[in-house]
Parts: sequence; structure tokens; C-alpha cells
Amino acid sequence: MSDRAAAFHALHRPGRPLLLPNAWDHASAAALAACGHSAIGTTSLGVAAASGKPDAAGATQDENRDLARRLRELPVLLTVDVEGGFSDDPAAVADYVAELAALGVVGVNLEDGRPDGSLAPTELAAAKIAAVKAAVPGLFVNARTDAWWLGVPEPRDEALRRARAYREAGADGLFVPGAPDDAVGLLAAQAGRPLNVLHRPGGPGLAELGRLGVARVSTGSLLFRAALGAALDVADAVRAGREADLPDVPAYGWVQELTERFRTDGHR
Amino acid sequence: MSDRAAAFHALHRPGRPLLLPNAWDHASAAALAACGHSAIGTTSLGVAAASGKPDAAGATQDENRDLARRLRELPVLLTVDVEGGFSDDPAAVADYVAELAALGVVGVNLEDGRPDGSLAPTELAAAKIAAVKAAVPGLFVNARTDAWWLGVPEPRDEALRRARAYREAGADGLFVPGAPDDAVGLLAAQAGRPLNVLHRPGGPGLAELGRLGVARVSTGSLLFRAALGAALDVADAVRAGREADLPDVPAYGWVQELTERFRTDGHR
Repeated sequence: MSDRAAAFHALHRPGRPLLLPNAWDHASAAALAACGHSAIGTTSLGVAAASGKPDAAGATQDENRDLARRLRELPVLLTVDVEGGFSDDPAAVADYVAELAALGVVGVNLEDGRPDGSLAPTELAAAKIAAVKAAVPGLFVNARTDAWWLGVPEPRDEALRRARAYREAGADGLFVPGAPDDAVGLLAAQAGRPLNVLHRPGGPGLAELGRLGVARVSTGSLLFRAALGAALDVADAVRAGREADLPDVPAYGWVQELTERFRTDGHR
Repeated sequence: MSDRAAAFHALHRPGRPLLLPNAWDHASAAALAACGHSAIGTTSLGVAAASGKPDAAGATQDENRDLARRLRELPVLLTVDVEGGFSDDPAAVADYVAELAALGVVGVNLEDGRPDGSLAPTELAAAKIAAVKAAVPGLFVNARTDAWWLGVPEPRDEALRRARAYREAGADGLFVPGAPDDAVGLLAAQAGRPLNVLHRPGGPGLAELGRLGVARVSTGSLLFRAALGAALDVADAVRAGREADLPDVPAYGWVQELTERFRTDGHR
């Protein structure tokens, strides 16, 4: 395992959760790096919407590869949301993830939800995990189950069954977006792998999630949507002749300097 | 002139300024369109930083073309900031802008500031304008002078001299970012073309700029920087265990629906 991959694994400490913010382009990733985040994820909604494509539709294979390439010189550990791996062929999923790993990516989120709104068969999702781990053993595979988001019956039992299968396939972590707060402690105790939950505004904070045994808290699409909302708010305010209620707006020079600091190789 | 180009020209009414918000990717452009903006510009800082490149360095020719292609099915009139045209060869600038026009772009901002921080000779900047207008007569060429931003001596006199030269070369509008408020009325009266100024938080609003004779107010990089700032604020708050002071955050479904509504042609 590379030092960087090992460092990413080591950030997953049940009880002291890693906050993993999710970026969607070079600017958001570089800005998060500059603000001290040593590991970042990507948001599949953000990456898709930024390029005019639908999320969770298996449409952003190229966009994610391009983004990984652009981010490879940032001083952060990067984990990429690859949806369901953009294929139901485990070998093809493994090849794709190996390409990302060759670009320096240290982890992926791999989900069992499918573009048609169904959960992939457990065996198929597990086979993808196993294929990826066989191809890139050091890469952190965060196995996401969409049991709650897709509204299956008895989602907790489904998630626990899948947690076991995904763990046996080699998954390094389990991600349970949409799990209710009262299920988090049980999941953390029984997943057998570091548990990742999604931050929810108004929900439990990092400290409380730590007490429940959570190891990673990610922001999903929240930062992207907050960014879009802020832009719309400012445009609305200017159009209406109001002063905008501005967030802390980075100066032009800060943004420009950020790009210079983390120059991508095509422009040295 | 195409109907769309004519419609864009008609939005420039001295005294009743067009608010032109500036987008940097498909999501920001589609969201602004969905919020009722019938014309949008691009922000060169945003387009550059989103892809990890420096602004105002002549490095984003491909990114701007790709963005124009992605936005071509949005129900908005699009004007693209092409910096200095990515060349000092007027014919090359005209060829590039003609490519954008073929993608449905109805206007460009063409600036006389150069990557080395100098102002291009007036004759060169005028020759670029003339070449673009000869190639694409209906396209709205907004000639930007960086007399203030680049800190030349006597910027007002310089801007007025250049306004005359650019107008004679065929420019449809004059853009004077950084012009002090007390110069705006004079510039609007003497430019001989619709005047575009940059919105400044805390500065005069649309109505006051209208009274000074302004025809277009653009937001430059402000929306992009506000978006980035909001994302950083939310990440900071979550990390610190505070509730984030969230702007109006669009729901996941709204963003996803936005992309479906304005589907790009590669994904019909």
C-alpha cells in the first residue's frame, strides 16, 4: 500500500470521525485543501451537474477521470464517488478504479443503488468490491448501501446483511446515507468496518456521531448545493436592488493565487 | 443578425440596465436560467479556476469553447468572456469567436488587458474588434478596457480615447471594470455605445446606475466567489461542530431536475 493510501486508511478512527468535505471541481477542491482539509471526496451530484449531466445515471465516467487528473497535484488525499462503478461488469469497474488509482486517488465510494432506482443484487455489488480490491488492494473501498435512500423494506436488516457481504468481499468501509440517527450506533457496532454517515444540517454533529462510533462524516452534495444557492441569492439581491447577504467571499486574488499555488501539470 | 443576437442587443437600454449574472459551469448557468435570467455571461476567473487554470493568462480557450457547447441548449442568451481573444492575431481571434457564435453564443467580452499586465496597443485591440465584427457582424462585441484595473496613468482619458477607437472598430458596447463611481456618468455619456459596469457590493445599485446612463451591469466573478465562500463556510462549520449559516440551499431534486430539464445533446 502506498504511503498516501495508508495515511487515508489511518484517518478512519471510529469515535473520532474524519470530516470529509466533497468537492466538484478544481476550485472547490483546492480551496478546501487551502483551508486545511487533508482529505476530500467528490460529490457525484456536483460533478454531474457542473457538466450538465444527471447524477446517479452512470453518465460521468469521463468527468470523474478528468477531475481526478486535474486534482492530482493538490496536497490532499482524494476519494472519488464512482456511483456504481459505471458498469455491471466487475472487471470493467476494477479497470476504471485502477485508472483512478494510477492518478493518485486513494479511495472510492461504490454504491449498490442503480440508475433504475433498484438495489443491485448483493452478489453483484460484492463482486465489484472484490474485483476492485483484487486490482488495487491498497485503495480504500467505501461500500455504500442505498437501502434507506431507495426505500427498501426493512432497510436496517438489508444494510446489515449487505455490510457483512461487502466486508467479506474486502470493503474497507461502509457508507449508509439516509440511515436514521437511531440506527447509527447499531450500524457502527455491527458493520465490522469504519462507518461513514452523511452530515445532515440540524442533525447530530461530529462529536455526537463520534460517540456513536462513526469513523467518517461526509457532506455529500451539501457544499455544492450551498455554493449554488449562494450564487443565486447574490444574483437575486443585485437584480432586486438589495444588498446581498454575502457569505465570506474570497477575494479575487485569493482564488487566483490558489490556482497558481496548485498548478496542474499542463500549465507549468 | 439572428433573432437571438438581435434580442441580446435590444436588452442594452441606457438608463434601464440589464443585470447580467456570470456563470462558470452548466449548473450555475442552468440555475440562473431557471431563476429567470434571460441573458448570462461567463466569468473568466470562474471558468479558469474551476478547471485549475489561472485567469487572464490566455489559458482557457478550450474550456470556454467546451462550456459554450454545454450551454447551447439552455434557454438563455449567452455572452462569453474571451479575455483578450487568446491571441494577438486578429484573424485567429475572429476564427475563435466565430466558433463560439456557431454554438449559439450571442456576444463576447474582449479585453485590452494582457497576461503580462500591460494594456494592448489601442490599434491591436481595435483590430481584434474589427476582425470579429467582420467575421460575425451580428455578435455583440463588448469591448473592455482595463485602464483602471491595470492602473495606467490618467485612466479616464485613456478609457475615453479607447472607447472612441473601439467604437470606430465596430464595438457594440464598452465595459469599464474598476471605473470609479464618479466617472460612470461621463463615460456613459461619451462612450457612444451602451456602457457596462461591474456590480460592486456596497456600491450603487441598478437603479442608481441606470440614472447615470448605464446599460449593462455584470457581476464578474462575484457569484463564483460567493459560491466558493459558501462551500468553505459550510465545511468550516461542520468541522467545528457549529450549525452552518446556510444560504437558501437548493434541494437535491431541484438540482437534478434542472439538469434533466436542460439536457445537453450528448444525453438525450
